[in-house]
Amino acid sequence: MIARDLLYEGKAKKVFLTDRDDRYLIRYKDDATAFNGEKKGSIIGKGAINNTMSAYFFQLLQSEGVESHFVEQTSSTEMVVRRVEIIPLEVIVRNIAAGSMSARLGIAEGTQLARPVVEFSYKRDDLGDPLVNDDHILALGLADEEELAKLREMALRVNTILREYLSKAGITLVDFKLEFGRLDNGEILLADEISPDTCRFWDSETGEKMDKDRFRRDLGNIEEGYRKALKRVLGGGK
Amino acid sequence: MIARDLLYEGKAKKVFLTDRDDRYLIRYKDDATAFNGEKKGSIIGKGAINNTMSAYFFQLLQSEGVESHFVEQTSSTEMVVRRVEIIPLEVIVRNIAAGSMSARLGIAEGTQLARPVVEFSYKRDDLGDPLVNDDHILALGLADEEELAKLREMALRVNTILREYLSKAGITLVDFKLEFGRLDNGEILLADEISPDTCRFWDSETGEKMDKDRFRRDLGNIEEGYRKALKRVLGGGK
Ligand SMILES: Nc1ncnc2c1ncn2[C@@H]1O[C@H](COP(=O)(O)OP(=O)(O)O)[C@@H](O)[C@H]1O
Ligand SMILES: Nc1ncnc2c1ncn2[C@@H]1O[C@H](COP(=O)(O)OP(=O)(O)O)[C@@H](O)[C@H]1O
Ligand SMILES: [Mg+2]
Ligand SMILES: [Mg+2]
Repeated sequence: MIARDLLYEGKAKKVFLTDRDDRYLIRYKDDATAFNGEKKGSIIGKGAINNTMSAYFFQLLQSEGVESHFVEQTSSTEMVVRRVEIIPLEVIVRNIAAGSMSARLGIAEGTQLARPVVEFSYKRDDLGDPLVNDDHILALGLADEEELAKLREMALRVNTILREYLSKAGITLVDFKLEFGRLDNGEILLADEISPDTCRFWDSETGEKMDKDRFRRDLGNIEEGYRKALKRVLGGGK
Repeated sequence: MIARDLLYEGKAKKVFLTDRDDRYLIRYKDDATAFNGEKKGSIIGKGAINNTMSAYFFQLLQSEGVESHFVEQTSSTEMVVRRVEIIPLEVIVRNIAAGSMSARLGIAEGTQLARPVVEFSYKRDDLGDPLVNDDHILALGLADEEELAKLREMALRVNTILREYLSKAGITLVDFKLEFGRLDNGEILLADEISPDTCRFWDSETGEKMDKDRFRRDLGNIEEGYRKALKRVLGGGK
């Protein structure tokens, strides 16, 4: 696969056209941002870690029947993916209250939720990615009813698979954000990335954070946290 | 009905105990607040207008089969209601985008929605009444699945009835906020108020606002707007 023009540079990744119309090449960057771009920094080695972990998870999910955009990892920081039309929704699944959910609803961080909570937020940086409900999604035409049901079902399925896998690796999956896209034929694929940038990973025993909260909250040892998470994921055990 | 101790003083109403255990007396105040209490003022005659309009609407809705807490209007500013345990949700129905929905989602105020949008917000002044989805409501234990379906159904039914009634009075019902409560037997009743404080009323021809936005946005002629709305509602025609 030959990378051609840069199509889009996001906050964490660059998307390149390739010699195949239906493929993109994604290059993961070390750049880190938080709070809708207000906080900026760089985490050495993050691009490679996030690319490698995403590739691993997409393959794991594929083996469990969850279709994604992933085609192949072509270098430490690059993967080839299927081109999709991204649905402008961040689909968040939460097992334990943390972050914005704790702040918005006044639920102490760390509170176990009786069952997984799914949230959708409208992917619009200029609006601060506002939370939306099903009616908003339909009114804005972001997805139709059938797609919405599919997104929810796929997100919960991803949660079940990753949660179980990670628990064996000594990691509690607190929450995560997914993005989905449509193929030309309308089929919905899991897209974007699954990494310490987009998940909260807590050590099952000590509660130590191994994710982007180390950056957001200035907890130090950021690279180390990311590396630990990757090692456990690849090892499939502690 | 004899009013006894003041049970609760809210931003717009006082709730009194009565000589009957299952009844409260509600006294509507002229006090006006907006933006979660940041803006404060007084609208002369508002208490009487809101009480009278609420009484009228509760009776209209009752005649269409929507059960509410309303028992009787006992003075210009007072009504007797059935005591309920208020469900801490603001149930908002929107026919046209305006206010917080426009601001949050970047939809121009005045945009007709293809179908009514229902929103729930968690009634918690200290958190700014955050928007919640069904999963949040269940996780927080604010209502169960059956109640949630009932709230949505009742809110949409109220919308259908009020929208049709108001359109004959030359008023476009843009959106409104409802509160619901539980009787001891678990039955859900419409509660609180239905007034220019809790609805957006636009003149169907000129678009003139006859509601609390005149106060929120310093549009002047606030009392006049409230009085016009009441006159049209009671007149049932222009
Ligand atoms: N398979 C795909 N096809 C098209 N776009 C994709 C695909 N996977 C991810 N994207 C998009 O590419 C961009 C990835 O870059 P990122 O730095 O995460 O962007 P952002 O700053 O918008 O979060 C995102 O906009 C994401 O939605
Ligand atoms: N039938 C009822 N039984 C018990 N409480 C009620 C009933 N109807 C309304 N309430 C509650 O009484 C209070 C009304 O006062 P209000 O000034 O509107 O309060 P707030 O400042 O909380 O909006 C609200 O908290 C409302 O939920
Ligand atoms: Mg991104
Ligand atoms: Mg109130």
